Amino acid sequence: MKLVVLSGGGGGARLTRGLADTLEPGELTVVGNVGDDLEVLGLHVSPDLDSLLYTLSGLIDEDRRWGRAGETWNVLESVGAWGGEDWFRLGDLDVGLHLVRTQALREGVALSEITARLAGRVGLRCSILPATDDRLRTRVATPAGTFAFQEWYVGRGHRDEVDAVEYVGAREASPAPGVLHALQAADAVVFAPSNPYLSIGPILAVSAIRRAIERRSVRCVAVSPLVGGQAVSGPAGRMLSRMAGGTTPDFVAQSHKDLIDALVIDRSDAPGAADVPVTAPEIELVVTSTLMHDRGAERRLADVVLEAACA
Amino acid sequence: MKLVVLSGGGGGARLTRGLADTLEPGELTVVGNVGDDLEVLGLHVSPDLDSLLYTLSGLIDEDRRWGRAGETWNVLESVGAWGGEDWFRLGDLDVGLHLVRTQALREGVALSEITARLAGRVGLRCSILPATDDRLRTRVATPAGTFAFQEWYVGRGHRDEVDAVEYVGAREASPAPGVLHALQAADAVVFAPSNPYLSIGPILAVSAIRRAIERRSVRCVAVSPLVGGQAVSGPAGRMLSRMAGGTTPDFVAQSHKDLIDALVIDRSDAPGAADVPVTAPEIELVVTSTLMHDRGAERRLADVVLEAACA
Repeated sequence: MKLVVLSGGGGGARLTRGLADTLEPGELTVVGNVGDDLEVLGLHVSPDLDSLLYTLSGLIDEDRRWGRAGETWNVLESVGAWGGEDWFRLGDLDVGLHLVRTQALREGVALSEITARLAGRVGLRCSILPATDDRLRTRVATPAGTFAFQEWYVGRGHRDEVDAVEYVGAREASPAPGVLHALQAADAVVFAPSNPYLSIGPILAVSAIRRAIERRSVRCVAVSPLVGGQAVSGPAGRMLSRMAGGTTPDFVAQSHKDLIDALVIDRSDAPGAADVPVTAPEIELVVTSTLMHDRGAERRLADVVLEAACA
Repeated sequence: MKLVVLSGGGGGARLTRGLADTLEPGELTVVGNVGDDLEVLGLHVSPDLDSLLYTLSGLIDEDRRWGRAGETWNVLESVGAWGGEDWFRLGDLDVGLHLVRTQALREGVALSEITARLAGRVGLRCSILPATDDRLRTRVATPAGTFAFQEWYVGRGHRDEVDAVEYVGAREASPAPGVLHALQAADAVVFAPSNPYLSIGPILAVSAIRRAIERRSVRCVAVSPLVGGQAVSGPAGRMLSRMAGGTTPDFVAQSHKDLIDALVIDRSDAPGAADVPVTAPEIELVVTSTLMHDRGAERRLADVVLEAACA
């Protein structure tokens, strides 16, 4: 079966790994968020694409859950000592990738082509596509002002509540080569357990991608990023509370309004268990354990997702 | 006294440190070679300015004699693994500096201003000025073809003999701010024991610098980079043999024709000692031990140079 996953980093990347472990080589295409991308120290950094690359290749630091295992931090120490900007944590092995990517971008190679080359170097069994090769940047409006995504997320430790999210450049952005084809050829579409506003939202902000999903004839399954009404990591819970009005499965489902057929939720969020009202009865709820504490759990969740996608 | 030193890296940087140790803060200005500069992995690298900075600040690896003490190499390992160019050895701490400098250059800050900022971060007692803020690049013509300096020096391990050296951009290059003023205010000028063609040559190729030295009213003292007719490191000996015809003090003096009043040479190269003819009697020869195997030797050589400069 041909599957397309829309994903950020973190848990999204881990579910993607579970799916890649389960599917045959070539069956899986991941469309990664680029709204988090930034230029820092003259380097083009694509945090979500890198999390996907590192997770799928096994290079990721499994404890820290971002960046590379065995990472060292001497570049950044030196940058700070010489008076450069060192607020964004870049490890030495990570910087190596950013240098290679940035140089290729400057030579005019598209992000999607570079991403394919990098994935090829580590022999991935699936394709990673950026949502777009065009410049698309997430900005958040908060009571303290409007910030570029990483300025808020890393620079301010995402401490400010978010009132609104905007995707600068989305209107003009085209899907990267291969994205629409993958969606059209897909037997199912999955939204990984990533932040609806910060990871899935920027992908769907590329209107041709949203349109392709709206017009699909196959099932689309989202996996909630919440466990017990809270994000496993990051601000998804706080953002759903403030921007959607709550963190029950209904609010998660509403954040993907008109796009999904089923929502996979954790047992701790199951209606009844916590007496949660269901107001979107057209969306099927699939209840399972969504915490991915090891590779086995990733594969088990992947199996549930695949079953829901093929239902 | 106000002293200006023209220097490459290596031995030139070590003599400069000896002079800085001896002179009062503010008395010493080093004009550094930028003909070796290169762009690699999108980074602007200034090897000679960095050798000066690292040597004068004590950050240099005293055994390797280039790069930083305690250096690690994870960026380059990663670059190679991702398929990037890894022929030019860049350590992690070194990359930190290159990122800071390259970002500032892209923002329009001049190399001289950046160099001053970096020197300020480590509290140097002297000024480091690049010969020029303009693009000036050394190229070498060899029997195997003409190469950009680092392509030949590092990429090909400087194995090809050199027939000629050209300084691309020198004609249009202006001295960096402060260089002419330092030369005009100097009580003496010193050519450090650096390669005449590859380190001193590119500085003097900036015509306003050469003219200022030709028109000086103070003494100019060169220190030979040779010991026993051979370079302590690098290809200076081979280049003098092939391009000037020999490696005796006369040939070294000829390479600085019409510019120097005195040449400091090692005892092993002293005329008489090896029965070497002297054909440039207008240039005073100063015989001492020029090998700088420790800080004490750097200071002793600096004392001899200062004495010759004040004669």
